[in-house]
Amino acid sequence: MSAAPRPGARFISFEGIDGSGKSTQIKRLATHLTQQGHDVVLTREPGGSPGAEEIRALVLQGDPDRWSAETEILLFTAARRDHLERTILPALAEGKIVLCDRFADSTRMYQGLSRGNLRGIVDSLHELMIGREPDLTILIDMDPATGLSRALSRQTKDERFEAFGEDLQKAMRQGFLDLAEEFASRFRIVDGARDIDSVADDIAALTEAALA
Amino acid sequence: MSAAPRPGARFISFEGIDGSGKSTQIKRLATHLTQQGHDVVLTREPGGSPGAEEIRALVLQGDPDRWSAETEILLFTAARRDHLERTILPALAEGKIVLCDRFADSTRMYQGLSRGNLRGIVDSLHELMIGREPDLTILIDMDPATGLSRALSRQTKDERFEAFGEDLQKAMRQGFLDLAEEFASRFRIVDGARDIDSVADDIAALTEAALA
Repeated sequence: MSAAPRPGARFISFEGIDGSGKSTQIKRLATHLTQQGHDVVLTREPGGSPGAEEIRALVLQGDPDRWSAETEILLFTAARRDHLERTILPALAEGKIVLCDRFADSTRMYQGLSRGNLRGIVDSLHELMIGREPDLTILIDMDPATGLSRALSRQTKDERFEAFGEDLQKAMRQGFLDLAEEFASRFRIVDGARDIDSVADDIAALTEAALA
Repeated sequence: MSAAPRPGARFISFEGIDGSGKSTQIKRLATHLTQQGHDVVLTREPGGSPGAEEIRALVLQGDPDRWSAETEILLFTAARRDHLERTILPALAEGKIVLCDRFADSTRMYQGLSRGNLRGIVDSLHELMIGREPDLTILIDMDPATGLSRALSRQTKDERFEAFGEDLQKAMRQGFLDLAEEFASRFRIVDGARDIDSVADDIAALTEAALA
């Protein structure tokens, strides 16, 4: 990846399979950047604004199959549009750094790949209704067996997103690596299998380079 | 309008401004067709399936401005996709007649026109995610002053859809007439200002011609 994120990157997303340590690392980065004097907004998808959180609850509650993949993509796109309009863009306009736990790349993976080959629909909807990518995307890469055992050891309410088996996690890992190649200028890959401090140091260095 | 709805029409939508008598007339037609031995499903938008009704509630409750027009269009398209998959298409596959109180034409009008010039977005989303039009659309046309006084005399929970003033209702009336011209082969216009029985007789005759 010879291309670089655009200078002054302020909209930074985190991606990776379940158990890759995204949530821990994004909090570490937020603390680090705040200590450096930056104004940081930490947000997540699906959700991240009051309306989007309501849509998230609507999608995730009840029978996992009660929405078709296509309807689910529409609901997540509606949530993303609200999140972008109400949380992300206003914060960026105020000069804040936005750290977002998952963004459109997760939809490209989880709805575009795991629920059928719907990547074309995901991309068309993104182009039509979202039209914005993060300036920098940090992919925390990890062996699926490690990620799965970490995910299963946690108590979480988002059972939908944790219910994938190891085969699917392997496909997801490869899918994220493929996305990193497809969007090489904004993606940076971090080896998440190391100790938390080493991973955090890498992410801080990558972010500071992109902020400059 | 010299073109005709396709023979054997089974998916029939009703459109018109608030107070035009849609709800009364669609029930009259359902009764009439049932008495003739048809198996009839009476449904409505937004809503019409359990999931779509939940999305409807999410959109219509709370502050009318809490969703942008674009997010609202995405939510309504999600609801329509669910309604189509879970209610309309299964009923048509069983040979039933589906009478639907509003369908995509209402989105073309209310979100595509009254909340900004978003017809292009509405059409792109429809083509991408819905792709189905009614076989026959009955437009109950009415002078807006008459429609408005009828709408205001009713108690209704859908305040969002009743809150338009007379000027906007005039624009809506013209917009529906324009849609009837644009989709001339499936639209039929009925004068809704007459007594209920005369309107019902006209609609029954139009429908029987289309069913043949």
